[in-house]
Amino acid sequence: MTAVADARIAAVTAAREARAMYRSGFVAPTAGIAPGMTQANMISLPKDWAYDFLLYAQRNPKACPVLDVSDPGSHSTMLADGADLRTDIPLYRVWRDGELAEEVTDASAAWAEHPDLVTFLIGCSFTFETPLLEAGIEVRHITDGTNVPMYRTNRQCRPAGRFKGEMVVSMRPIQADRVADAATISGRFPSVHGSPVHVGEPALLGINDLAAPDFGDAVRIEPGEVPVFWACGVTPQAAVMASGVPFAVTHAPGYMFVTDVADSTYHV
Amino acid sequence: MTAVADARIAAVTAAREARAMYRSGFVAPTAGIAPGMTQANMISLPKDWAYDFLLYAQRNPKACPVLDVSDPGSHSTMLADGADLRTDIPLYRVWRDGELAEEVTDASAAWAEHPDLVTFLIGCSFTFETPLLEAGIEVRHITDGTNVPMYRTNRQCRPAGRFKGEMVVSMRPIQADRVADAATISGRFPSVHGSPVHVGEPALLGINDLAAPDFGDAVRIEPGEVPVFWACGVTPQAAVMASGVPFAVTHAPGYMFVTDVADSTYHV
Repeated sequence: MTAVADARIAAVTAAREARAMYRSGFVAPTAGIAPGMTQANMISLPKDWAYDFLLYAQRNPKACPVLDVSDPGSHSTMLADGADLRTDIPLYRVWRDGELAEEVTDASAAWAEHPDLVTFLIGCSFTFETPLLEAGIEVRHITDGTNVPMYRTNRQCRPAGRFKGEMVVSMRPIQADRVADAATISGRFPSVHGSPVHVGEPALLGINDLAAPDFGDAVRIEPGEVPVFWACGVTPQAAVMASGVPFAVTHAPGYMFVTDVADSTYHV
Repeated sequence: MTAVADARIAAVTAAREARAMYRSGFVAPTAGIAPGMTQANMISLPKDWAYDFLLYAQRNPKACPVLDVSDPGSHSTMLADGADLRTDIPLYRVWRDGELAEEVTDASAAWAEHPDLVTFLIGCSFTFETPLLEAGIEVRHITDGTNVPMYRTNRQCRPAGRFKGEMVVSMRPIQADRVADAATISGRFPSVHGSPVHVGEPALLGINDLAAPDFGDAVRIEPGEVPVFWACGVTPQAAVMASGVPFAVTHAPGYMFVTDVADSTYHV
């Protein structure tokens, strides 16, 4: 057994153990969990809404890079053997008529309301955080053990069918002399949001107070650091709100689906 | 006016002039036309088939990277101002019940049969040929002024709904000491098929005779050259055949839609 194979088995094991913990009710943000294993955003919609959403994702690939789509009614995914999409995420949101109806740790009951749910798993910027760390670039919310800060913006996505809405971004403060490296490294992962959509100048994105994120937790910004913004997989939730979608189940921001797929799979 | 801006205007002008020529009936393969401007594969399907196809594309992104999807009944695209998708491709194929019914230079009549056609424009490996040439890597079918050779393979795509079928590949003979460069350069363009799916050993893909391509023209393979295979945007046409799709309009292999989008747009 080689060291590489050992590490791979350990990483998959960590992912499986994390999913089992979440399935049994443990609730915490997933940043830093099962390092090297891809995490994903989730949105489940009735079949009638699936085409419009898949098109919305195609038209907004930086915000909504689709990693897998389940068949209607299926709660499994090729991204994680034996996973149950109804229970294996730490925290879910149930949406009704475009509004957040409840947060639950087990979405089985919501799932049972619609036998034809189609589930979309969408890339998450956590995937390029391990390469950032390996390059010696600090990721503040990992250092501080908090959720990543996320913000709604004034940047509209390209609409598709009944879907419209603004782009949501995640933010990481990066030392000015490492911003280019962070852009280059994340750019090698286009399936998980790729390079930043905006660097510095939060007001131009319509963000007036970095200390008050719309989702997740605020993070320290130290002298010499620049706020760097990446498109975020919470964008579909903004679209659910803006479009008045009658029913959806999503993950809660920062509480992701931990897959068995190595981050390196999405490296180009 | 800078030289860069001049070159950009010249390239867009070349693309527009090419489309105007094709619209007026000129028929020729498009390899080497409007260098630096992205070319695209096309498939138009009745709305009822659109979700299954978009999902097929999502599940097979190397073969079917989607660049744009039109709204039902629209014959325009954001990839080319003022273009008409019914007429601006040099040669179209009309498919009925999974079989090639006819080739036409103007698809307006076929389009008129289905008022709800949804058109998918799919990346084409021609996009990374200019960077290959710039790196000093010969592209044989451009040298020889022929169509690129394309082959059906024994590699099955991941099915989606009613769609199934094998992957189609394009082939370029590359000098053995430049194969790695060709893989690296094309890999920077994941939206237009990206890196090769197979290098050498055509028999392992089920290709028994490189001199007899299923689409396009055979090309010379010189001593010291290795056949390198890229996923090809003719894969949707193989799916139309394998799946018995009742009605589709596509481009003819090698006769692409020339867009106004610079190849560099798809560089990551």
